[in-house]
Amino acid sequence: MARKAAIIGGGVIGGGWAARFLLNGWNVAVFDPDPEAERKIGEVMANARAALPALSDVPLPPEGTLSFAGTITEAVEGADYIQESVSERLELKHRVFAQIQQSSHGVPIGSSTSGFKPSELQENAADPSVILVAHPFNPVYLLPLAEVVPSPKSDAKVVEKAKEILREIGMFPLHVRKEIDAHIADRFLEAVWREALWLVKDGVATTEEIDEAIRMGFGLRWGQMGLFETYRVAGGEAGMKHFMAQFGPCLKWPWTKLMDVPEFTDELVDLIAGQSDAQSGKYSIRELERIRDGNLIGFLRVLKDRDWGAGRVLKEHDRMLAAQLPAPPKAEALVMAHMQVLPGWIDYNGHMTESRYLFASSETCDNFLRLIGADMDYVKGGHSYYTAESHIIHAGEAKLGDRLTGTLQVLHADDKRLHVFISILKGDEPVATVEQILLHVDMKAGKTCAAAPEVLAKLMPIAEAHKALPKPASAGRHVGQRRA
Amino acid sequence: MARKAAIIGGGVIGGGWAARFLLNGWNVAVFDPDPEAERKIGEVMANARAALPALSDVPLPPEGTLSFAGTITEAVEGADYIQESVSERLELKHRVFAQIQQSSHGVPIGSSTSGFKPSELQENAADPSVILVAHPFNPVYLLPLAEVVPSPKSDAKVVEKAKEILREIGMFPLHVRKEIDAHIADRFLEAVWREALWLVKDGVATTEEIDEAIRMGFGLRWGQMGLFETYRVAGGEAGMKHFMAQFGPCLKWPWTKLMDVPEFTDELVDLIAGQSDAQSGKYSIRELERIRDGNLIGFLRVLKDRDWGAGRVLKEHDRMLAAQLPAPPKAEALVMAHMQVLPGWIDYNGHMTESRYLFASSETCDNFLRLIGADMDYVKGGHSYYTAESHIIHAGEAKLGDRLTGTLQVLHADDKRLHVFISILKGDEPVATVEQILLHVDMKAGKTCAAAPEVLAKLMPIAEAHKALPKPASAGRHVGQRRA
Repeated sequence: MARKAAIIGGGVIGGGWAARFLLNGWNVAVFDPDPEAERKIGEVMANARAALPALSDVPLPPEGTLSFAGTITEAVEGADYIQESVSERLELKHRVFAQIQQSSHGVPIGSSTSGFKPSELQENAADPSVILVAHPFNPVYLLPLAEVVPSPKSDAKVVEKAKEILREIGMFPLHVRKEIDAHIADRFLEAVWREALWLVKDGVATTEEIDEAIRMGFGLRWGQMGLFETYRVAGGEAGMKHFMAQFGPCLKWPWTKLMDVPEFTDELVDLIAGQSDAQSGKYSIRELERIRDGNLIGFLRVLKDRDWGAGRVLKEHDRMLAAQLPAPPKAEALVMAHMQVLPGWIDYNGHMTESRYLFASSETCDNFLRLIGADMDYVKGGHSYYTAESHIIHAGEAKLGDRLTGTLQVLHADDKRLHVFISILKGDEPVATVEQILLHVDMKAGKTCAAAPEVLAKLMPIAEAHKALPKPASAGRHVGQRRA
Repeated sequence: MARKAAIIGGGVIGGGWAARFLLNGWNVAVFDPDPEAERKIGEVMANARAALPALSDVPLPPEGTLSFAGTITEAVEGADYIQESVSERLELKHRVFAQIQQSSHGVPIGSSTSGFKPSELQENAADPSVILVAHPFNPVYLLPLAEVVPSPKSDAKVVEKAKEILREIGMFPLHVRKEIDAHIADRFLEAVWREALWLVKDGVATTEEIDEAIRMGFGLRWGQMGLFETYRVAGGEAGMKHFMAQFGPCLKWPWTKLMDVPEFTDELVDLIAGQSDAQSGKYSIRELERIRDGNLIGFLRVLKDRDWGAGRVLKEHDRMLAAQLPAPPKAEALVMAHMQVLPGWIDYNGHMTESRYLFASSETCDNFLRLIGADMDYVKGGHSYYTAESHIIHAGEAKLGDRLTGTLQVLHADDKRLHVFISILKGDEPVATVEQILLHVDMKAGKTCAAAPEVLAKLMPIAEAHKALPKPASAGRHVGQRRA
């Protein structure tokens, strides 16, 4: 049965949490007295539905049920996890925890606070041991980071349980071992924000120039390595010590003079808001969100392809999801892949780009090869199936967000050759079919050779079973041949 | 004739500058008294050759000539641009400028300094007006940002000329209007570095935990939007003022207590170097460089596909390069595309992934469609050529970094149908051929229709000329058909 998450506070952050849980199959109850909460969460959900599934290569579980509770008590009833994302006022958070703990016992209560320490959150609580910081980053449904900060009063088992739940919904729980104001990441954000306010106030740079100074340079570096690994590389062959010897003394240079806090006047707010309008006002917030999400999906897919950083978190999440999928049947064309059309698959016409139909077919065929044991380990052993030729026939159109299914029928197999017919379906209708010949090769020798007995032992029974299937009408045709 | 850049100082940064100029067709003379300079620059060049061309969709000009000069005078002789990247010691930089200006007159002299203001660099110079800051970011051959900082003594024409040269080599010159220690970006880097040192020193987090706190969260955001645009979005519908009202008061919170400078002791250096070894020591610096470059290429390609941020700089650079290319001939199979196999095109076998052969073919065909006027504007008008079917025959293998050429032969054309044969060549040998039928469609009606007269006026003469070409041996075959 689906588990339940209670989301207390339904703004941008609470909405992002709700979306992550829902799309990972949890039921979610939201409590937020704002009469606009339902509409706002609906808009976050629309963004999240268009984004999060694009990161996964296995189907997500069926979406959970979203409900809006009239009271905190109702929201937390039967919840397996509770996340608090109300305004950053300590006495408000204390009141919320007190209400939660009137009826909830032993369930982890994560707080989205960016500033308060867990020991502050726990003050006067009925059960301080289950309250911890679980600080996410916007957009919560895409960025994997959640800073998990316990205090000495926290129950270690509850902390581990919370981390496990965060992993299950695709996040990267970073266990912060020592509580400190603003945890880790927001200390950096605060330092940069302070410096940026000075630069704008003193007329050194506009908001747009500051953004360019970040995203054209070190921002790109930090999306894939952090601060220290980047500097380790920058030190060159001489390494980290050399880098520090170079950069260390800068701390004593006059750059650090701007460490005072700028006064937060109305003039400064107007200056920044005005510059920001000039920079980004041509886009609505919703447009900017979609642009941001598309960019982040692209970055995250790059890292996933390269098995690095945040991409590793996505791969691990896929493995967790895949472990729960049922095994495919064998007596019909095999359903070998579930896919969704991602933003990067779309061409300038707004349609799925031509080569992505073949990509979808490759994913389908790769999964079939894994099924018969011609997997990564087999390839490492020096053997593989290489595609010799492919005939693609386009039968329909796929568009952004469409869910596609890849099926595979074996037309013929012997010890060296594998002749298959792959259909890429939208619903029950093919958008493309791909007829392929694959050859089994000895990769070192660069020659065809017989597949390993254990592969043939899996392949041949499927080939035998598939002889009973009708031959697809478009198999065996050449390009431009009319249908009979 | 190729222009000449003089690179004074050949470390990681000077080497990166040399690589950018060379790969953009400039001749480069390097001066560096380090006997290892030639080897070190060779290694930067190897990285750059594997990386920079991967960002371009049009061929880069032929690589310039690299030479090593025995003196500064020799290096700057006849140079059109001079870049200084020696150690961050002001008196050393002053000596270098003095030597340069003994023989160079009126040529822009950019300094890679991250800390000094241009007015400091210009002190006592023979001609202060040509000395300016041109501060790049590592890896210089991939990241577009160069902070260009003039002083009141700078010649505005020289500054504009320097910016134009930086654009020509694919960079984004950010004109910093008011000189300040550390310019813009390094003020942020300095603030974050200081905060990070405290966190490590106080045992709050290890170098690895800090890196995860960055790259799993806000680092991804900053690669595509900067600080202010990100916060504008985070403010939600209420916008920038709302965000500032929320975040502004944090500046007065106790987070800011850590603004002292930590003492830079040997213990702290050892602590950080040791943690960094534990985090990244399993990779050599060269391996980390290649991982970083692959990730950055991926991010930059994502942004290029999405025409956003640093990707726009790449597109503009392509347009500059494309404007210099000669028009293709018409009496033979048309050379329609030059491509290079990018890291993202490689599968787990280390080979070019199957669907990328079709991608290369699509690029070739798209360029042909542009040639006959069926371009983006034509598509906006509601008409397009859709691929109906494709037969791919694999004839060889492409690997990372291979340069590929796409040629196209028209087999048949009428007002609605276009039957083409595309070859993807490595050198003179095909790695794949693709036979395709395209249909001309009215996109709104979803039906085939005759192409516009101006398109047919360009297409038909090519089709007529191509009748003289022999029919490719593998055209008209079905999948699995043996050669005659």
